[in-house]
Amino acid sequence: MQRYKGIVAYDGSGFSGYQIQPNGRTVQEEIEKALGKMHKGKPVSIVASGRTDAGVHAKRQVIHFDSALQLPSERWVKAVNGLLPGDISVMQVDAVSSDFHARFDASGKTYKYVVYTGSIRDPFKRHYAAHYPYKIDIAKVKKASEFLTGTHDFTSFCSAKTEMEKKVRTVTNISIEQNTDEIVFTFTGNGFLYNMVRIMVGTMLDVGTGKIELQTIPSILTGRDRTLAGKTAPAEGLYLWEVYY
Amino acid sequence: MQRYKGIVAYDGSGFSGYQIQPNGRTVQEEIEKALGKMHKGKPVSIVASGRTDAGVHAKRQVIHFDSALQLPSERWVKAVNGLLPGDISVMQVDAVSSDFHARFDASGKTYKYVVYTGSIRDPFKRHYAAHYPYKIDIAKVKKASEFLTGTHDFTSFCSAKTEMEKKVRTVTNISIEQNTDEIVFTFTGNGFLYNMVRIMVGTMLDVGTGKIELQTIPSILTGRDRTLAGKTAPAEGLYLWEVYY
Repeated sequence: MQRYKGIVAYDGSGFSGYQIQPNGRTVQEEIEKALGKMHKGKPVSIVASGRTDAGVHAKRQVIHFDSALQLPSERWVKAVNGLLPGDISVMQVDAVSSDFHARFDASGKTYKYVVYTGSIRDPFKRHYAAHYPYKIDIAKVKKASEFLTGTHDFTSFCSAKTEMEKKVRTVTNISIEQNTDEIVFTFTGNGFLYNMVRIMVGTMLDVGTGKIELQTIPSILTGRDRTLAGKTAPAEGLYLWEVYY
Repeated sequence: MQRYKGIVAYDGSGFSGYQIQPNGRTVQEEIEKALGKMHKGKPVSIVASGRTDAGVHAKRQVIHFDSALQLPSERWVKAVNGLLPGDISVMQVDAVSSDFHARFDASGKTYKYVVYTGSIRDPFKRHYAAHYPYKIDIAKVKKASEFLTGTHDFTSFCSAKTEMEKKVRTVTNISIEQNTDEIVFTFTGNGFLYNMVRIMVGTMLDVGTGKIELQTIPSILTGRDRTLAGKTAPAEGLYLWEVYY
């Protein structure tokens, strides 16, 4: 058996999320179905760098799987994409050492979050950006991002349902670009808790509109209480952009 | 009654086209439904600058309709968008003189056509660009566009089913931009026959790959025979961009 590392892009708008579940279409299920067909019906399990929620997109999700097939990347890409639905695409498949693990070996990730700030809704963006048609003080948003950058206990910035005990993470960089009618946030860090990016965005946008005072961000962090932070920004603006090993 | 001119954007991927038909979801039907609700169930008919096919998008389609309501543009936009599905958005609604006609008064149109040339399919572009992963000689494509610009009988470049008798049209400008993995065609003219933009794109791409000889374009035009030109490029790359009055 050979272990393979795959890079996968998907449009999350038609999925109930990455991970297989009893009801609803999932990315994992579609990829495993396609790989199963390539292996004459023999089931092939895949492991991803992490799950993504319903509506969340991925530009370069990383998976691993084992196969008895020996194929170069281009052949894998052609064969698997020929069996996958149009909203998932395998970009690359490389042979890796048998101990490579897409989830445990990930040393960091980059996420992007796209906010559409135009006053009138745009049908072409409804699945690909969060619509936030409010006046935003971008300088304040950038200041807020500085408070969030670094090593912190992010308990206030993850879903209250998160069962992971250790909630300290390092966000190495948050960059914010504003175009005519868009704000694009880019987050890089060693790991992100459940909903963490979306809660950071929701909170920073609240700072930008004045709903949350900029100066309270440090106390929101130290308060370690989800109810202190802003709303969870919607799924459609979020993209898993890159996974580092 | 007041006549209104509306600007409408729609993502064509979920529609069987613009025009109402017995089966399938249409843009016209959705807008007339929304306007009907605004008028307490009294039917409101709309007239567009022209129809678009299934899968074809519009950034600024123009419609007109008559209403007893007197509202400023922002109020129309808010009210109608609140009743429309997410894949249609009204951008502007202005009172116009009672003899304005969205179709008969149109003096010209701009269409864009987006081609994605990357070798691996992109799930985010599947509904918004035509995938054409072939080596294209862009200089030849540009030369072909020069042959097509101007006043010609476009019989060879419209669906053989077209029943309009006069097939002379003036294409005032074709511009072609190539980015990393995209080619964007912009066509402006006084009018376009059924499928004309898509057949021009299909033919120019065939010139770019060498399937059709550049020098044959003038004789394809003078031959006035649909079978001489290239294939009709797919609907998903086409955008009605602007209508002029």
